[in-house]
Amino acid sequence: MNEVRVGIVGLGNVGSGTLAILAGNREAIEQKLGFPLRVTAVCSRAVHTKTLPEAFAGVLRTTDWREVVRHPEVDVVAELVGGTSVARQIIEAAIAHGKSVVTANKELIALEGAELWDRAIGAGINLAMEASVAGGIPIHAVLREGISGDQVMSLWGILNGTSNYILTEMEQRGAPFDSVLREAQGLGYAEADPSADVDGYDARSKLAILAALAFGERIRPADIYVEGIRRISPMDFQYARKLGHRIRLLCAAHRRDDGFLLSVRPTLVPVGSMLASVMGAYNAVMVKGRYGADTLYYGRGAGPHPTGVAVVSDLMRVAREIRSGSPERVSPFAHERLAQHQPLPVTIQKRAFYLRFRVQDRPGIIAALAGILAEKRVSLDAVLQEPCDTKDDLPFVITVEPTREEALREAVDRMAGLDFMVEPPLALPMEPQL
Amino acid sequence: MNEVRVGIVGLGNVGSGTLAILAGNREAIEQKLGFPLRVTAVCSRAVHTKTLPEAFAGVLRTTDWREVVRHPEVDVVAELVGGTSVARQIIEAAIAHGKSVVTANKELIALEGAELWDRAIGAGINLAMEASVAGGIPIHAVLREGISGDQVMSLWGILNGTSNYILTEMEQRGAPFDSVLREAQGLGYAEADPSADVDGYDARSKLAILAALAFGERIRPADIYVEGIRRISPMDFQYARKLGHRIRLLCAAHRRDDGFLLSVRPTLVPVGSMLASVMGAYNAVMVKGRYGADTLYYGRGAGPHPTGVAVVSDLMRVAREIRSGSPERVSPFAHERLAQHQPLPVTIQKRAFYLRFRVQDRPGIIAALAGILAEKRVSLDAVLQEPCDTKDDLPFVITVEPTREEALREAVDRMAGLDFMVEPPLALPMEPQL
Repeated sequence: MNEVRVGIVGLGNVGSGTLAILAGNREAIEQKLGFPLRVTAVCSRAVHTKTLPEAFAGVLRTTDWREVVRHPEVDVVAELVGGTSVARQIIEAAIAHGKSVVTANKELIALEGAELWDRAIGAGINLAMEASVAGGIPIHAVLREGISGDQVMSLWGILNGTSNYILTEMEQRGAPFDSVLREAQGLGYAEADPSADVDGYDARSKLAILAALAFGERIRPADIYVEGIRRISPMDFQYARKLGHRIRLLCAAHRRDDGFLLSVRPTLVPVGSMLASVMGAYNAVMVKGRYGADTLYYGRGAGPHPTGVAVVSDLMRVAREIRSGSPERVSPFAHERLAQHQPLPVTIQKRAFYLRFRVQDRPGIIAALAGILAEKRVSLDAVLQEPCDTKDDLPFVITVEPTREEALREAVDRMAGLDFMVEPPLALPMEPQL
Repeated sequence: MNEVRVGIVGLGNVGSGTLAILAGNREAIEQKLGFPLRVTAVCSRAVHTKTLPEAFAGVLRTTDWREVVRHPEVDVVAELVGGTSVARQIIEAAIAHGKSVVTANKELIALEGAELWDRAIGAGINLAMEASVAGGIPIHAVLREGISGDQVMSLWGILNGTSNYILTEMEQRGAPFDSVLREAQGLGYAEADPSADVDGYDARSKLAILAALAFGERIRPADIYVEGIRRISPMDFQYARKLGHRIRLLCAAHRRDDGFLLSVRPTLVPVGSMLASVMGAYNAVMVKGRYGADTLYYGRGAGPHPTGVAVVSDLMRVAREIRSGSPERVSPFAHERLAQHQPLPVTIQKRAFYLRFRVQDRPGIIAALAGILAEKRVSLDAVLQEPCDTKDDLPFVITVEPTREEALREAVDRMAGLDFMVEPPLALPMEPQL
């Protein structure tokens, strides 16, 4: 038998999707590889009550992941439990047993990918992690192989399907954030505690992984500026449309001579750009290379089957290597000589901004705001106001010409203290490069 | 020296772009690989008058490709001359010398990729061809690795940048085909003989390669139905817009239980779809998998640098293998047991159609056309007419509900013979799946 044998740890959504694909697509997988991929062990707390695909009737079922990683008939371990504590133990134990690992674990790879990769290289095994970011988009394969000859200068992403779904629904139906969020929770698209999605932390972990791979640098989630979508309201979409833009929770990473600019924040993107066309629970990544110009990759961000495709594709790649003998490896995370850069504060970036106000109407408001902008040497570009029948809570928008964000923030802080403000101004950057 | 040594044959656009990247990105390439990639020989008819990057001052320059393929200090040969005659000799000779090959050759791979791959497997070397289709998009890496665990059911592409540029300009400026084509020729975006681009043959070769890789089947360019964009006129964009669509030269490949449907033809795509957002000289490929849902890949279709990135990325991948020892290989073109299907006539496909007429106005025209449709059991959906001040050449549009194309074609042939027709009706399919 020249098969490669797989142990699966974790039978939640991703684990079940992976098994369904390994069963349903078995013949095609064997044809592509030239040898079979055989599941020999599965582990889950509820393994004895799970119904497995018929093809896996004879596999070892266990509730103890240690049985899988040390099983003599397991060549590669798929860690699909998520989280950072047990998952780390599983991966470290598998590496210690000389077994390659396939993981879908975003949090752990974002925090400790570089350290785990060092261990993997020490042990001569592979650590495959396509499923850890944007499950349905093969962005790891693209960065690792497809465009490896290029030097990535910028990377943008829509990396959280839940928040993109919420923003799309708000735009299309003019519905407020809270009610769309509740609907999304009812439909199972958003968690009971939605913070990771709508406050940008989930997207931040993903951007940390992608930026690290794209730049070959150590980048930690804490290095990335983050701002969520809770303050966006339906009127912002109306004003954005007037300005020829849509609002997206945009992840951005730029390489500069002196370091990196890294952020996750709601951003105005031009309506004609490919990223503005990404609707609903889809994800996309746009990469700008020094040579290859811009490329974009689009697909489902999550889901048992799209993420399962990533896991199975990684298992196939690792299996090919196990059969052919281990190649030399270089960590995708930090190429030592290149790892010289620091994250820079996003406030040094120079961009146009969208400022949305809610005020108690009275004479002199524009004069007061324009005076503060002038004082901070920020150039006003346009003033927009949609018809509105209340004087107590009047919305309007000012756009400003490209300015360093630090000056703009000082201006916005000053504005927030003015007595006619109903709430502090909302300031969103506008991204002209897309 | 643990370097891998590269011989480049062909110093046109792609060859020059490749050398520029190998020189400019040398340090990052070595960091990613863990060892250097060194150019040792270059060949071109004009090699002695070319200025090479300074880094390549000492390389062998020759006008005879045989010197490159048999050079003892060349481990991998990049065939960048194009065409099907000399290129085939170069690749076959390199394989015969046991050297891996990287090629950017669309025509040759479309026609003989499967045979060349059989030779490569026999010799235990690699045949890398990322640059052969949509240079700036790493679609080979995606199909080979990123989503290899999925089963591709459908693939759509915008694969000819010149025709997409022409269609985009026609739409945006309302300019006729002939004048936009002449402009494109003046700008160097279109060849003096534009047939390969505007009649769909270039896109057809690319689709033949992608469909073969996606389905693991033998697919020849001649298997693919092709129709160009010469008959599209500015009014078609106006009518399409009214219907919520744009017109794209769309490549499509569908897997069915009984075979394949393969076509390159101008098609109406919904305005909200990602493929409709592809403007100008960009390319895109959308893939629908049995498990992974739809994914899309977007970038420059051509150009020295984008295509050079594909060549350099392939060189890096092949170099890794050369250092690690040759893995087992399975041809990406035809997995024998799966190769059971035949291309089917596109006329069996059932779709909605857009029919655009130019007629001499008189009473009874709609009645005559509707009568023919009814006779062929094709259901009329809508009739659209833009204001027009001439009675001698009056355009209007009829859309019909999904129908087998064979019935529609019979109807259109009958209509073409009616005495009030200024020219035969233009029939374009509408693609609802995008």
